[in-house]
Amino acid sequence: MLIERQEVLQRFSQVVKYQDTVYLSGVVPTDLSAGMAEQADEVFAKIDQLLATAGASKSTLLSMQCFVSSFDEFDAFNTVYDSWIDPEAKPARATVEAALYDPRVKVEIVCIAAAT
Amino acid sequence: MLIERQEVLQRFSQVVKYQDTVYLSGVVPTDLSAGMAEQADEVFAKIDQLLATAGASKSTLLSMQCFVSSFDEFDAFNTVYDSWIDPEAKPARATVEAALYDPRVKVEIVCIAAAT
Amino acid sequence: MLIERQEVLQRFSQVVKYQDTVYLSGVVPTDLSAGMAEQADEVFAKIDQLLATAGASKSTLLSMQCFVSSFDEFDAFNTVYDSWIDPEAKPARATVEAALYDPRVKVEIVCIAAAT
Repeated sequence: MLIERQEVLQRFSQVVKYQDTVYLSGVVPTDLSAGMAEQADEVFAKIDQLLATAGASKSTLLSMQCFVSSFDEFDAFNTVYDSWIDPEAKPARATVEAALYDPRVKVEIVCIAAAT
Repeated sequence: MLIERQEVLQRFSQVVKYQDTVYLSGVVPTDLSAGMAEQADEVFAKIDQLLATAGASKSTLLSMQCFVSSFDEFDAFNTVYDSWIDPEAKPARATVEAALYDPRVKVEIVCIAAAT
Repeated sequence: MLIERQEVLQRFSQVVKYQDTVYLSGVVPTDLSAGMAEQADEVFAKIDQLLATAGASKSTLLSMQCFVSSFDEFDAFNTVYDSWIDPEAKPARATVEAALYDPRVKVEIVCIAAAT
């Protein structure tokens, strides 16, 4: 069965689709000088864009795994999350703390979505 | 294709079903004063309950990702895990250490299961 | 629908297949005295072997989650990764830092692949 890979970078594909299930790479911000709210905003906007390339959207999210560099900023993260998420289509979610690839990165999100 | 969301909370759905695959949110204990064994017991009981709402069970688990706050308590965790798991239907499993949303939380588990 | 479990160990199945999607357990090295490059080599060789048992391969990888014990060794990890990955079939990937089950373990990788 066909595997579609989109938005392919040097080391990974940002979007992989198989059997109408869409796997995203961990999405990280590019503006590392920004605070949690701005980083989260950028990450969610990028997720919107990547999901769209695969015929998915935040309304077809199945599962989301969030890595935050510190739970001290969990409220700031959740405020942005709450304003972004589709209230009629909340995914399964897990959030844990982890050091990310650069100490300035405050959030990385991994998504699985349906291409409907 | 239909996406079913069950046990929906403020920020996420505890159960999401798509194409007979079931995605659970990270399951955490509610009694944060408890030790690892009690927390693991509570988490596995909650997983049983959530899987049942989607027509799945521990015997149809595909993949399990366990986050423990300290590997110092890995033996205590595994003892409870060993007594809970279906020996005829062991899932794929990964366990890593991570700080969780409250310093008293000792374990969080993310599951993917089949709805058969 | 049939769930196939292969390479079953005491606590988990190293390979679980369902609906032509293959879930691997977290793959870790066995030679814990080795450096990152050697550990990564061993992990990727093991992944090749496990995927093959399920009719999958690195060319059908969908998603890969890498846990490294320290991003100080991320370059060493990526060098091995770059030489292993199929450049025509890069998976979605996320990498975060986490303490692993033994302080000498430098890398653990979780894969989802297609059995085509």
